[in-house]
Amino acid sequence: MSDLSRCSLNTATVKHASLTEAVDAAAAAGMGGVGLWRHQVQEHGAEAARRIVEDAGLRVTSLCRGGFLTASTDEGVRDAIAENTRAIEEAAGIGTRELVFVVGGLPGSSPEQPPAAGTDRDVVAARGRVADRLADLAPIAEQHGVRIVLEALHPMFAADRAVISTLGQALDLAAPFAASTIGVVVDTYHVWWDPALEASVQRAGREGRIAGYQVCDWNLPFATSALNSRGHVGDGYIDFATVSRWVAEAGYTGDVETEIFNEEIWAVDPHETARTVAERYAEHVAPYL
Amino acid sequence: MSDLSRCSLNTATVKHASLTEAVDAAAAAGMGGVGLWRHQVQEHGAEAARRIVEDAGLRVTSLCRGGFLTASTDEGVRDAIAENTRAIEEAAGIGTRELVFVVGGLPGSSPEQPPAAGTDRDVVAARGRVADRLADLAPIAEQHGVRIVLEALHPMFAADRAVISTLGQALDLAAPFAASTIGVVVDTYHVWWDPALEASVQRAGREGRIAGYQVCDWNLPFATSALNSRGHVGDGYIDFATVSRWVAEAGYTGDVETEIFNEEIWAVDPHETARTVAERYAEHVAPYL
Repeated sequence: MSDLSRCSLNTATVKHASLTEAVDAAAAAGMGGVGLWRHQVQEHGAEAARRIVEDAGLRVTSLCRGGFLTASTDEGVRDAIAENTRAIEEAAGIGTRELVFVVGGLPGSSPEQPPAAGTDRDVVAARGRVADRLADLAPIAEQHGVRIVLEALHPMFAADRAVISTLGQALDLAAPFAASTIGVVVDTYHVWWDPALEASVQRAGREGRIAGYQVCDWNLPFATSALNSRGHVGDGYIDFATVSRWVAEAGYTGDVETEIFNEEIWAVDPHETARTVAERYAEHVAPYL
Repeated sequence: MSDLSRCSLNTATVKHASLTEAVDAAAAAGMGGVGLWRHQVQEHGAEAARRIVEDAGLRVTSLCRGGFLTASTDEGVRDAIAENTRAIEEAAGIGTRELVFVVGGLPGSSPEQPPAAGTDRDVVAARGRVADRLADLAPIAEQHGVRIVLEALHPMFAADRAVISTLGQALDLAAPFAASTIGVVVDTYHVWWDPALEASVQRAGREGRIAGYQVCDWNLPFATSALNSRGHVGDGYIDFATVSRWVAEAGYTGDVETEIFNEEIWAVDPHETARTVAERYAEHVAPYL
C-alpha cells in the first residue's frame, strides 16, 4: 500500500458513523487524518473529540464548517459573527488551523423550496456582505490561530448555499487579508469544470493560500438529491491526475481529504468506505502529488 | 400590454406542440418571434417551416442547435463537420442568422450513466478540439451568412453537454473570428451565478458578439431530472432586472427568447404557456431593456 500519511477521511463521507467509528475506520485504513464537523465537536466537547482523534494516531485536518455570512438584517449579521466566533473557538480547541467556510446563498433561500415573496435576489450585494463579514471575522480567527478557509461551491449551489462559485472569486475575497488568516480549499467536485482552474490554483499557491485539497468525483446521472451525487474518486468524470498535479505544482504539501455526500455510500460499512477511499487515493491522487 | 416585439418563444418551452401550434401560440400571445429547433425544420423542410412562421407574422429568432464538437476520433471529427454544415444550411434556409451551438461534453459522456471504462476525462483537451472545429466551421458559416452562436452551459452540464461553462470562455473561443461569424448567447439560467457576468456581458457587447438573450429562471428544488429544473421567469432565484440591464447597457437590441425545459410546463396548454411567457417578459425583463 502506498503512503497514506496525507490521506484524510472527512467524516461526512461516513455520515452515519459515530466520531469514534469514523476515526477507527480511518486509522484502520492507514490514513493520516480525519476532517471533522462541528456537530461532532459539540457532541463530545473539543477536548474529548481531540483525544479520540489523537489516541488513534491521527490528525484533525480541518473542521467543517463555518460561514453563512450573507444575512442582510442587523440580527442576521450579529448571529453570523457570534456563530462563526464559536466555530473559530472550536477549531482551535480541536487542534486544527483550517476552518472551512461555506459562505451562504441568497438570504432566505432554500434548496427545498421556491423563493418566498420578497426574496432578495441580489447576488452581487450578497457577495459584498460576505466581504464585510470576513473583515469582521478575520481578526477573531487570527487571534485564535485559526485560518478561515473559503470554499467555492459548484455554481449549482449559488442560490441556496454559496455565492462563491469559483476559486478565483474566493481568492479575490481573501486578497485583503493575510494568507495565514484567510485561505482557500480546492475541492474537485466544485471546481473541476472551471476553465480558469489551472491559473487559479497557481495563483492560490503563489499567494500561499491553499489550505486544503478535497477530492470526490462528479457522478452522473445526478442522484435524486443533486447535493448527494458525489462519488468515490474514479467513479465519475473528473481528471484527478491533472488537477492533483496542478495542486502539487502550486506547492501544496498538505492533507488530501475525501469528502463524499452520497446516500449509497452512507449505507456502506464505514470501514469498507474508508478502505475504498484509501485505495482510490492511492490509485488516482497520490501518484500525481 | 407592453411591447412584445422583441419577445420570442423558443419552441422547446412548448415541447409537445407541433410547429404550427407553437407558432400560433406565440402569435396569439402577441410575440414578435419564435426560436426553432432543427427537428422541426427537418420535419417540414426549411421552406415550409419558414412559411409557417412568416405567415403568422413572426420572425425566426434563432435555430437550436448545432455543436457537439468534442469528438477525438477522425470519424467523430468528420461527422461533426458534416452535421454542423447541415445545421448551417438549415439556419440559412429558415431565415435566421443565429445558429446556437452547444459544444458538447467529454467524448463518450452521458447524462444517464457513469463513465465507461477508458473514458477520456481531459476537459482541457476537449476545449482545444472545440477551438479546432470552430476554425473548420467558421468559413462555412460565413459563406452561408449564418452566425455560430456559442452557448455557455451551466457548469452542472460540463461533463456531458458543454465544456464551455462561462460567457468569458465563450468569448475567448470566439475571439479569433469575426463577430459576424461567431457570437455568444447570454442565457440567464446558465450564467446568472457567474461573478464575472457583468464584465463578460460588457465585453460581449463591446466586441459586438451578443447574438441572443435567452431567459428562464433557476428553480429550486431541482426537478428529478436536473436538466428540466428551469422555470418561468419570476418563479426562481434569478435577478432578471440586473442581468437584463447589463445586457441592454452592453448595447443589445435584439430578441429575447424564453426557453424553458420543465416537465410541468410541457404539460400545460401551449397557448397558456405562451401567455405566461409574455406576461413574465413584460413584468420582469422588458422594463430593464
